[in-house]
Amino acid sequence: MNRKNPKPLTLSIDAMGGDNAPGKIVEGVELALKRHSDVNFILFGDQAKIKPLLAKFPHAAARSRLIHTEEFVTDDEKPGHALRSGRNSSMRLAINAVSDAKADGVISAGNTGALMAMAKFVLKTLPGIDRPAIATSFPTRRGGSVMLDLGANITCNADNLVQFAAMGEVFARHVLGLTQPSVGILNVGSEDAKGSDAVKMAASILTNTKLPIKFHGFIEGDDIAAGTVDVVVTDGFTGNIVLKASEGMARMFGGFLLEALTGSLMGRLGALIAGGAINKFKMRVDPRRYNGAMFLGLNGICIKSHGSTDSLGFANAIDVAIRLIADNLNEDIRKDVARLGMELQSRHEAEAV
Amino acid sequence: MNRKNPKPLTLSIDAMGGDNAPGKIVEGVELALKRHSDVNFILFGDQAKIKPLLAKFPHAAARSRLIHTEEFVTDDEKPGHALRSGRNSSMRLAINAVSDAKADGVISAGNTGALMAMAKFVLKTLPGIDRPAIATSFPTRRGGSVMLDLGANITCNADNLVQFAAMGEVFARHVLGLTQPSVGILNVGSEDAKGSDAVKMAASILTNTKLPIKFHGFIEGDDIAAGTVDVVVTDGFTGNIVLKASEGMARMFGGFLLEALTGSLMGRLGALIAGGAINKFKMRVDPRRYNGAMFLGLNGICIKSHGSTDSLGFANAIDVAIRLIADNLNEDIRKDVARLGMELQSRHEAEAV
Repeated sequence: MNRKNPKPLTLSIDAMGGDNAPGKIVEGVELALKRHSDVNFILFGDQAKIKPLLAKFPHAAARSRLIHTEEFVTDDEKPGHALRSGRNSSMRLAINAVSDAKADGVISAGNTGALMAMAKFVLKTLPGIDRPAIATSFPTRRGGSVMLDLGANITCNADNLVQFAAMGEVFARHVLGLTQPSVGILNVGSEDAKGSDAVKMAASILTNTKLPIKFHGFIEGDDIAAGTVDVVVTDGFTGNIVLKASEGMARMFGGFLLEALTGSLMGRLGALIAGGAINKFKMRVDPRRYNGAMFLGLNGICIKSHGSTDSLGFANAIDVAIRLIADNLNEDIRKDVARLGMELQSRHEAEAV
Repeated sequence: MNRKNPKPLTLSIDAMGGDNAPGKIVEGVELALKRHSDVNFILFGDQAKIKPLLAKFPHAAARSRLIHTEEFVTDDEKPGHALRSGRNSSMRLAINAVSDAKADGVISAGNTGALMAMAKFVLKTLPGIDRPAIATSFPTRRGGSVMLDLGANITCNADNLVQFAAMGEVFARHVLGLTQPSVGILNVGSEDAKGSDAVKMAASILTNTKLPIKFHGFIEGDDIAAGTVDVVVTDGFTGNIVLKASEGMARMFGGFLLEALTGSLMGRLGALIAGGAINKFKMRVDPRRYNGAMFLGLNGICIKSHGSTDSLGFANAIDVAIRLIADNLNEDIRKDVARLGMELQSRHEAEAV
């Protein structure tokens, strides 16, 4: 990887978040260090559980500082409750490290709602952003795209969607390495007259914006996997359901294929011979390769790893954090959003006249 | 098939609707007649195109009456325009045949919006139904489920969702052959506090209804393919996008698998040996097997076939129509919805006091 920033980075890790914490989290740090040997880590969590793990993972032990706390946020805790009573939780302390400038970014595989609530409270939103959004990259037939929002905002107005488009465009430039990613708004049809008022107004704003956004217009559900656009913009209700439905479909497909191949002698024999090809196929759709959702619009880098991830997936989430920090993602978002903010402001003033 | 109704059915067919019309439509009728030899068809469309096809398909020719019209609804026509100026279109005449009691049900692979607008105008909604919904069955890890609404209603209130639940439950009993299908509302989390006001209110009504509905509560996106519930209830915006996104994912998966297997000699050899197993897998996820979306809540059976379907898919849509007519689906919906209507009415009156 080509890092613009030569200073070693420090990442703050919620070592107690996720289904497989802290075991797979510490192992993920170990794996990440094989690719990024100069990164430092601060691990927040229960030392009685983490110390024995560090004894097993020498790279992680050498580059990590462990800060002990016995408190952690549970998966079923409501965001408001976590915010009020989780001030000493591993998640909250890991976020604090970013606002205290002790770390350049934070990663957690814990409760998404709590992480968003705490990150918003501690880090605050970037100027010009009304609401942060959750974004991730995913595999498509053309390679990869990004989608947002994935669940931070259940209902969204046109301004929210336009801000998501601007942030998503910058995110895609960084995470997919594209010069000018195309942006589409998810809708039930590609004609201008279809859809909710919010998507119609957002499309109209993006068609007329002075920002250098390559706006494709509306896309439909099947355009997501087709890779018709590089950035898929939608509200958090639809985005969350579509992403989880796609993950479910992928698991069903994999399961059916496995059952078919193992269900007969010829199937097993064929699978054995085609093993290399089947592994290539599996790797291409391996969800761990796309682990690491970014909370966009916050005044700091905050990455959410899938709760059920293993060490490889967590290491990939660390990769995403390192890349976005090294590339100064938030600086680019700040610039674009400032310009967008002026546009939206003058539109609202014109409407009010 | 075990048909309750011994009288031969008559189906009205929009022979000009869909990407492959009229060729695959007439061929689909031919295929359907091999399974249901006693069904009669009325084909609406251009006789110059349909007559030569009937000469090729003897079963279809023997059991079909052809009614000539040169007009048809195009795929990009707006529903309102089609309704106003498509009075002599093959789609409209095919729907009229149901309201004129000349046919027991209508099937079209044409423009969904136009079909819904015309069917609503001509057939009217069932008493107690505010808005019809589009429903279909789809494969899951547990077998099959149904989902609605798939695009007829962009925004839905709680009453709409509750009516969809009641209609979807009856539809699942008929089309999946279940005694007591379970019903879930699609949401971004399974806890009661999550989601929009409409889904929260709908869940509260369904939890307390006196109708014998087995209400599971909220489900998430990955529950769709897992088959967690038999009936997935959602608004038409989310449902349309999720269904199309899943179709897109399936195509991507199939494409990746094919590329992997054909990309190497060992892959091709293995695929050849495991051919039977791979075909079994393909059949299990073949979208044609699930072709035929039902317009629920109308005073008549109206089935929408996928626009790009081939003859096998169209024959499956005919199967769905025959089963629902023979089983008196709408009579069952009418009974349940009348009871539900009284419940919703008394709730609104209580709120108004």
